[in-house]
Amino acid sequence: MSTLLTGEKNGKTLAFASGRAHPSLAQDVARELGVDVLPTTAYDFANGEIYVRFGESVRGADMFLLQSHTAPINQWIMEHLLMVDAAKRASARTITVIIPFYGYARQDKKHRGREPISARLVADLFKTAGADRIMGVDLHTAQIQGFFDGPVDHLWAMPILTDYVRTRVDVSNVTVVSPDAGRIRVAEQWAAKLGGGPLAFVHKTRDISRPNQAVANRVVGDVEGKDCVLVDDLIDTGGTIAEAVKVVTAAGAKSVIVAATHGVLSDPAAQRLSECGAREVVVTDTLPISAEKKFSNLTVLSIAPVIARAIREVFDDGSVTSLFDGNS
Amino acid sequence: MSTLLTGEKNGKTLAFASGRAHPSLAQDVARELGVDVLPTTAYDFANGEIYVRFGESVRGADMFLLQSHTAPINQWIMEHLLMVDAAKRASARTITVIIPFYGYARQDKKHRGREPISARLVADLFKTAGADRIMGVDLHTAQIQGFFDGPVDHLWAMPILTDYVRTRVDVSNVTVVSPDAGRIRVAEQWAAKLGGGPLAFVHKTRDISRPNQAVANRVVGDVEGKDCVLVDDLIDTGGTIAEAVKVVTAAGAKSVIVAATHGVLSDPAAQRLSECGAREVVVTDTLPISAEKKFSNLTVLSIAPVIARAIREVFDDGSVTSLFDGNS
Amino acid sequence: MSTLLTGEKNGKTLAFASGRAHPSLAQDVARELGVDVLPTTAYDFANGEIYVRFGESVRGADMFLLQSHTAPINQWIMEHLLMVDAAKRASARTITVIIPFYGYARQDKKHRGREPISARLVADLFKTAGADRIMGVDLHTAQIQGFFDGPVDHLWAMPILTDYVRTRVDVSNVTVVSPDAGRIRVAEQWAAKLGGGPLAFVHKTRDISRPNQAVANRVVGDVEGKDCVLVDDLIDTGGTIAEAVKVVTAAGAKSVIVAATHGVLSDPAAQRLSECGAREVVVTDTLPISAEKKFSNLTVLSIAPVIARAIREVFDDGSVTSLFDGNS
Amino acid sequence: MSTLLTGEKNGKTLAFASGRAHPSLAQDVARELGVDVLPTTAYDFANGEIYVRFGESVRGADMFLLQSHTAPINQWIMEHLLMVDAAKRASARTITVIIPFYGYARQDKKHRGREPISARLVADLFKTAGADRIMGVDLHTAQIQGFFDGPVDHLWAMPILTDYVRTRVDVSNVTVVSPDAGRIRVAEQWAAKLGGGPLAFVHKTRDISRPNQAVANRVVGDVEGKDCVLVDDLIDTGGTIAEAVKVVTAAGAKSVIVAATHGVLSDPAAQRLSECGAREVVVTDTLPISAEKKFSNLTVLSIAPVIARAIREVFDDGSVTSLFDGNS
Amino acid sequence: MSTLLTGEKNGKTLAFASGRAHPSLAQDVARELGVDVLPTTAYDFANGEIYVRFGESVRGADMFLLQSHTAPINQWIMEHLLMVDAAKRASARTITVIIPFYGYARQDKKHRGREPISARLVADLFKTAGADRIMGVDLHTAQIQGFFDGPVDHLWAMPILTDYVRTRVDVSNVTVVSPDAGRIRVAEQWAAKLGGGPLAFVHKTRDISRPNQAVANRVVGDVEGKDCVLVDDLIDTGGTIAEAVKVVTAAGAKSVIVAATHGVLSDPAAQRLSECGAREVVVTDTLPISAEKKFSNLTVLSIAPVIARAIREVFDDGSVTSLFDGNS
Amino acid sequence: MSTLLTGEKNGKTLAFASGRAHPSLAQDVARELGVDVLPTTAYDFANGEIYVRFGESVRGADMFLLQSHTAPINQWIMEHLLMVDAAKRASARTITVIIPFYGYARQDKKHRGREPISARLVADLFKTAGADRIMGVDLHTAQIQGFFDGPVDHLWAMPILTDYVRTRVDVSNVTVVSPDAGRIRVAEQWAAKLGGGPLAFVHKTRDISRPNQAVANRVVGDVEGKDCVLVDDLIDTGGTIAEAVKVVTAAGAKSVIVAATHGVLSDPAAQRLSECGAREVVVTDTLPISAEKKFSNLTVLSIAPVIARAIREVFDDGSVTSLFDGNS
Repeated sequence: MSTLLTGEKNGKTLAFASGRAHPSLAQDVARELGVDVLPTTAYDFANGEIYVRFGESVRGADMFLLQSHTAPINQWIMEHLLMVDAAKRASARTITVIIPFYGYARQDKKHRGREPISARLVADLFKTAGADRIMGVDLHTAQIQGFFDGPVDHLWAMPILTDYVRTRVDVSNVTVVSPDAGRIRVAEQWAAKLGGGPLAFVHKTRDISRPNQAVANRVVGDVEGKDCVLVDDLIDTGGTIAEAVKVVTAAGAKSVIVAATHGVLSDPAAQRLSECGAREVVVTDTLPISAEKKFSNLTVLSIAPVIARAIREVFDDGSVTSLFDGNS
Repeated sequence: MSTLLTGEKNGKTLAFASGRAHPSLAQDVARELGVDVLPTTAYDFANGEIYVRFGESVRGADMFLLQSHTAPINQWIMEHLLMVDAAKRASARTITVIIPFYGYARQDKKHRGREPISARLVADLFKTAGADRIMGVDLHTAQIQGFFDGPVDHLWAMPILTDYVRTRVDVSNVTVVSPDAGRIRVAEQWAAKLGGGPLAFVHKTRDISRPNQAVANRVVGDVEGKDCVLVDDLIDTGGTIAEAVKVVTAAGAKSVIVAATHGVLSDPAAQRLSECGAREVVVTDTLPISAEKKFSNLTVLSIAPVIARAIREVFDDGSVTSLFDGNS
Repeated sequence: MSTLLTGEKNGKTLAFASGRAHPSLAQDVARELGVDVLPTTAYDFANGEIYVRFGESVRGADMFLLQSHTAPINQWIMEHLLMVDAAKRASARTITVIIPFYGYARQDKKHRGREPISARLVADLFKTAGADRIMGVDLHTAQIQGFFDGPVDHLWAMPILTDYVRTRVDVSNVTVVSPDAGRIRVAEQWAAKLGGGPLAFVHKTRDISRPNQAVANRVVGDVEGKDCVLVDDLIDTGGTIAEAVKVVTAAGAKSVIVAATHGVLSDPAAQRLSECGAREVVVTDTLPISAEKKFSNLTVLSIAPVIARAIREVFDDGSVTSLFDGNS
Repeated sequence: MSTLLTGEKNGKTLAFASGRAHPSLAQDVARELGVDVLPTTAYDFANGEIYVRFGESVRGADMFLLQSHTAPINQWIMEHLLMVDAAKRASARTITVIIPFYGYARQDKKHRGREPISARLVADLFKTAGADRIMGVDLHTAQIQGFFDGPVDHLWAMPILTDYVRTRVDVSNVTVVSPDAGRIRVAEQWAAKLGGGPLAFVHKTRDISRPNQAVANRVVGDVEGKDCVLVDDLIDTGGTIAEAVKVVTAAGAKSVIVAATHGVLSDPAAQRLSECGAREVVVTDTLPISAEKKFSNLTVLSIAPVIARAIREVFDDGSVTSLFDGNS
Repeated sequence: MSTLLTGEKNGKTLAFASGRAHPSLAQDVARELGVDVLPTTAYDFANGEIYVRFGESVRGADMFLLQSHTAPINQWIMEHLLMVDAAKRASARTITVIIPFYGYARQDKKHRGREPISARLVADLFKTAGADRIMGVDLHTAQIQGFFDGPVDHLWAMPILTDYVRTRVDVSNVTVVSPDAGRIRVAEQWAAKLGGGPLAFVHKTRDISRPNQAVANRVVGDVEGKDCVLVDDLIDTGGTIAEAVKVVTAAGAKSVIVAATHGVLSDPAAQRLSECGAREVVVTDTLPISAEKKFSNLTVLSIAPVIARAIREVFDDGSVTSLFDGNS
Repeated sequence: MSTLLTGEKNGKTLAFASGRAHPSLAQDVARELGVDVLPTTAYDFANGEIYVRFGESVRGADMFLLQSHTAPINQWIMEHLLMVDAAKRASARTITVIIPFYGYARQDKKHRGREPISARLVADLFKTAGADRIMGVDLHTAQIQGFFDGPVDHLWAMPILTDYVRTRVDVSNVTVVSPDAGRIRVAEQWAAKLGGGPLAFVHKTRDISRPNQAVANRVVGDVEGKDCVLVDDLIDTGGTIAEAVKVVTAAGAKSVIVAATHGVLSDPAAQRLSECGAREVVVTDTLPISAEKKFSNLTVLSIAPVIARAIREVFDDGSVTSLFDGNS
């Protein structure tokens, strides 16, 4: 293998580089692509400023720059931006920014006045640095595609997750459950994918008759005796999910599997999820999952094949859309 | 009244102008503001090109340009853009584009590959023409705020609607219903506003046991014996809403009121809604509602006071957020 | 034929798509190019919003997007913009916007204060949507080329028109006539092309001796006994042209042929032109000419070969200028 | 007088500065405005690089920067740009660029392929440097207004010129003449202004019967026995104008007065114009007219009052349009 | 005191807010200004994403947003950017970004190929987020002013430092020393300020006669018996400075005082500087200096008065330049 | 040879054109490249406006546009900008602006308030005109690379100069001298290149004991008996350099050679340098050196091979960095 790949059709050159946030994913993607990760120097100065430099010429290359926005998230975003700037000034022909987990995606609107719209800001920062295209996986809301002024290739982890889950449950007895009202659309897609079974969601409510009482969670929909699949795009501290598992169990579910694309798994997610009663928790490795984040019933699926295939389609002027049956 | 309003604090000048799409709303807003609508010439040439010209100098003024994107929608969007261009070239100090109903808001993401993201495009077109700020009412998704590169003042019609509905139902017996899975978040806000009652939604599903059967709609949640309030941001042809009314009624609802901010009411909405069994259909006048769109149990509330108050806050450097308890 | 064309020299791909405004022209151009028009879905929603989607991947392609800005003009401009946005987000390599008739071209300056400069706005809207290049035919004023921030390939219909007219008149007896003072430059080019004969124009004037009299038209220049060719870039409602035919005839012309690139032919152009006394009216099909716009002595020449040749030159990195003897 | 002027209405500050191209015009405008020209250091380094610096703080001021683009024209344009950059970086609130004669205005389109559109480039350069508004006088073509992405205040010298010419000719016996086909529109405006008399133009033609013969000029229209006023926007080397005077005289004109806004008067204009037979040549001082450019029958009118009034209207948020009966 | 300050002259409003990097400096600046720091919510989510929100309306205000780019530097830069975005979307009239220590300033050029120019990137990021103006203190190189597309107010700490040092040394016996060749310009300014005494610098060199020998440092210039003032713009880990103190001492200096604007003081600066033999180390508090960074002979001067005065000048449309004798 | 060069790898086309400032350098570069200079028409109109037009199609070509910013510098900068605009509008694929001597490079910061940052402005002007990349030689300060929003290929003349100087001096006895404190960094690089010898600089100082005395120059560092090489990036009027030669000679130097990349040599440089006592003055031909600028001991080295090699690397997607051992 070598660090640059040459296109057959048109003499183009592909270069694939990565920041320091998630090196094992970079290795996996590179292996799938059949290239080496471009040698890149990256380290911190004493005061925390980051230094990056590419080890080989990238002039005229189609560069793919991978960085997953894991903690310390602001550091890795800045490193990502610096890599884009370096690629631009080094005369890369095009720059595709690959963000398996897109930082600040949940701040995609002003929930209240005088807030930033951070997800738009992040898109603008990459545009300013010199990005031509963004490639992301299961963006928190699809509207984020519209935050970037250019093409966004939106990859789906759902096929990987549903293929796996299908092997773990009796599909004819499944209810797909959303942990709150805002994510039912995703649950609906899951239900369709798993064969059209029933749908439920957990609703936070206040009991009007007891005004001083705290919020209670109720299941809306039919879960009794069912194999429940609780789905979300990401699991952060696991509070909402673990609570939902308990509520669904209390409502008579036969079993509960949790599935999500992004395993953020901020402390104390490992503890909460291992203790909540879920039979299994399934995520992909769009984010690095360190040893202390792991727990016994956690399953991590590889996202690298999806990313590598998409890179290949982009480089060969193929179709990313076709990878997902027209849905991207 | 006069066509220009002068600010007390800082000598600024306000000018309020309108396109031809919804003149009665412009009159109502102007009356609330205490100004005249700026005299504006606007007509179509023989081949459909639009001509616009402001009748008085707007140099140095804070201009507020109202146009609701009703059918023929592309004509009114273009007229709106031309007005912005004219205002920019006439040296207006700032230009606020008021869009009570934002065209193409439903195309806020790529549902499939090779589609435009039309709602982002519309935001960019106004930016390019010279808009400094957008003021909208109940945008289809809040993320559209992030499509514009500048301040977006997001007005809420919900207080007007809930205040009215509260007078029409027994709040202690209400279930708020979303017509599909994607709008439950709005229903949740309504439920909180009406006192925290139960929530339900209509779920489109395929019966797995009958694979060749068409899609069926089921109510997820508790509606039996309830006074149901079916809520959405807009009603277009009324198909989804009318169907939902029937399903909820079939599930045992005591009564159904439909409430939505935007009464698009494209044909055959009037027929469908008047025949679906709803007790009342409530909308605001963010869009003009012509005689043929009206029907007996339709109630139209005025949005003009909200818009006028927001313009005033913007002009006086007050707070639009405060008009909505921090939620804008 | 297939929907994508591959360049011989460099492996590039050409895709040619069209909006709904003028499908027959798209077919003609495609046939000349030897490709199929790219399958494209385009329709209107109930409230008039347009939906467009390309049926095949255009990633990496040089896209040529044809739309003629005919009535309903604002709808077709918006559809054109949406197609550009879709192409940009679908990763087309370059986007060339082909506008056989450029909408709003006549509003290319502020005739009075507080007007827009609509032709500049249109150029900016296409730039914002993602256009890299504009290809137009006989722009109303050549300065419009300067409104776009990028290359404009300006095609000329004049060779087609003059070649035809030359077969219809005795060149040695021709006077070229401009219908008003502002278009004499075009008439001068025609005169040069037809062999250097005399020139005339119709001048609107007030008779000073009769101050309350309406405007009168006079011919300035020599038309008596001449075969007059009355030229303009477009014919809209035909008022000016028909009047000019009458004035020229009254001044003793032997015959009058009218020639123009763009047959806008808004009502009542057909009636006026068929009744004005012109021997023949010649236009190209840069705009669709529906049955009710046609009349007996109207001749429509095909512009497709010129557009197809220009597309080919652009795609092959040839020279559009050379197609017009250096004049483009 | 002082160097800064404070607005009555809103506490704004006006600063008026000038480059070195036309200092006497700056003095005249300043006197009309009632301010001093802002002290400004400007000189050339040994290798021709220009140094500029404002002598007083301009923070928060509405700056008006005057420079007429006379020869050495590229030097003065660059100085103008440097002043804009300095004003921007010194935190001026707004920057209005006043260009009595706009350089490169005649290159407002591609006459042939592979040319620049220099007039658009100049507009973009000023935008890039930081200009918010351009104020120009009798731009070569009105479309140049559309080259700038912002407000352009287009001042007219014609009232000054026509007021003067009216005192010099018998209006009832005037024919207005355009020196070539492209400028007849201006002539038409003059004719309307002077009372609606006849119009003529000089047409360059080749005699078909003598193919090897050089170009000949002919008058199209009626000039015999008339007091002709030959009008153009500018006089450069005077070749076209002087030739036109001769042709018109040869065609029997009683007298010829030449009138133009901009007296570029490049060598050998003085000689040509003084010898061509014109009774008088009238221009304004939008450009400096050095001693060697002057000749006996040259009349120079002052443009300063028009510019000063327009600055005042801009600063006071008044109407520039109203200064010219709605035509700006 | 209140959180908003109203200008006397023009009714403008000042709002001063700060990120979390250096709260004591914010308090000091606010006290000098006579306002309260604007209430602002700022915290980290579990995965490190930052949340910010202003506690009061800033609509129409001139906002001054202070953040010193200390470690963790990427976090504080991102927080700063998010505050700018929030201010922009909350309709602040102008946004001035105050950066007492500008992050990544040392990466102001490509030292080698394929590096970013990080200092330019930072300027662009702030521009993109919405900054109108940057205010910095002793930028590492003055060229960084040119990296921002807008006004940069460059404040000088040197007067504070030289005023203090003057009280600590016998000015008539001073030699100003630069720690390396690249900073002599600063030393030259110090020498001028302290009365024009001699200058020296430390030169890193290889002894040609001993090719395998490591680099040696030599003093170029006269330091024997002198009170040396070793000056730099910043002290990071203190390696270069401490080495320079030793070399200068070895070369016979009577005493050495170290003076720098920015006390970055990354580990092990405290140890190195306290042990290197310097009589005193003087810095300002442009960066927070935590307890573990302090050491016995460290003197910290307050930069708050300079910043507060500059804010006041900007707000009042006064002159920042005048605060520094025309040098800013 | 022909005017267009085709790349072997990917079918790209190279076109190399030049303005009128330094035609012999263009010929030299073209010869090294093995192409002809693209036929280009360029001349001045009577009023100094420049006309340019490329003589052949450049559609799809990678254009390299050479112009050295010599006097009359503003004319040549404008010509350079017009060429970029013409190339952009003629559909060149990429535009690389080659500036052997970058005009206004010395104005790279605000030395005092209310100045422009002219070097940034120049970079922005080229960006606006359409430049994709700048190629420069020994920019006055490396930070200028950061002024351009895109790749800057920074070429070094130093290898050419040091290779030559090495043949002219006894390297073991060399002291490298900077003419003032600000350029010592360059001297340090020279010293390293020539083998690590000692360094010195000339310091302008005021004698404190004689306050009314003028400025005196002193040598800081060891020059007695040494073969001094006095280095700078450019020599303009030669005042500083000639003075430095005298001071160094007076301090006992055995000989003095002056070396600089850019021979601006404005009057009276020739006289000063020929009389100052330098043994030889060495420059490259980045700027044209007319006969009257030459003097007996001036040596001019050719920069063309460096530029041609860099163009070739850019065109072939090779590495410019590698030409300079990673330092570009």
